[in-house]
Amino acid sequence: MPQTTQTETGLAGESRELVLTRLIDAPREALFRAWTEVGLLKQWFTPRPWTVPFAELDLKPGGLFHTQMRGPEGEKFDNRGVFLEIVPGEKVVFTDAYVPGWEPAEKPFITAIITFEEEGGKTRYTARVWHFTVEDRVRHEAMGFHDGWGKATDQLEALAKTL
Amino acid sequence: MPQTTQTETGLAGESRELVLTRLIDAPREALFRAWTEVGLLKQWFTPRPWTVPFAELDLKPGGLFHTQMRGPEGEKFDNRGVFLEIVPGEKVVFTDAYVPGWEPAEKPFITAIITFEEEGGKTRYTARVWHFTVEDRVRHEAMGFHDGWGKATDQLEALAKTL
Repeated sequence: MPQTTQTETGLAGESRELVLTRLIDAPREALFRAWTEVGLLKQWFTPRPWTVPFAELDLKPGGLFHTQMRGPEGEKFDNRGVFLEIVPGEKVVFTDAYVPGWEPAEKPFITAIITFEEEGGKTRYTARVWHFTVEDRVRHEAMGFHDGWGKATDQLEALAKTL
Repeated sequence: MPQTTQTETGLAGESRELVLTRLIDAPREALFRAWTEVGLLKQWFTPRPWTVPFAELDLKPGGLFHTQMRGPEGEKFDNRGVFLEIVPGEKVVFTDAYVPGWEPAEKPFITAIITFEEEGGKTRYTARVWHFTVEDRVRHEAMGFHDGWGKATDQLEALAKTL
């Protein structure tokens, strides 16, 4: 485990989830669309200068969620998983613990619960990212979860306001 | 790993799934009902003299699948998981990798894909049980998967023929 976790105590230290929440001045439906339409998702899903040149979304339980991420030096990462639950305008749940057909991944890492709730004319946007182990949560945090998801959410917010 | 696995070679040795398949002389719908109605499931789900005095089924993706098993010496095991997919009359998929709300289990073990297919006036019944690791598949086999699921399937078959 990285050095930084040694000072953590109590619940945070044992937690298996990372949470990002933000009040966004855009309708729930716009945020849901930005998560579920390929042409929109590609515009915000990775912090620039990284891009998403290709994505596939099959919006049903067990349906493919595939994103291809490209870095400024030509790096390429393919992420394949499945959706677990879709509630239009309210919730998107996905994981990399399975591929379509429900074959389990050998190294499951995250399960993300994205919710959109009306709050005083704006939208309470929450990304709750679960890990199967505390070690995976620690590793994800050390990989830069808060910075990376924060910047992507800035891009999501800017896009949603235009929809 | 148990001694028995050392003689396995090739795909079987590396496989993460266990499969039980049987041609059953009962309609698909009867088998589906036996899997999805609490009062029926309790009658066949564990090999006698074990019983299932209590079960809860919430038939939707992310819905609770809870069974309580009792042994002849008073042993008690609670198994909690969720359904991942339900296709009426055709398919039931569940796992112990999550509890409702999509919180991942700390020790996910199985993901089971149960299918019912029409075959020459009978039903091709297949239980495909995936594990996240080869070690878990080996352990499940050593725990008596084939004997246990085989006897339970005998009970399922007998019940389905009466429906």
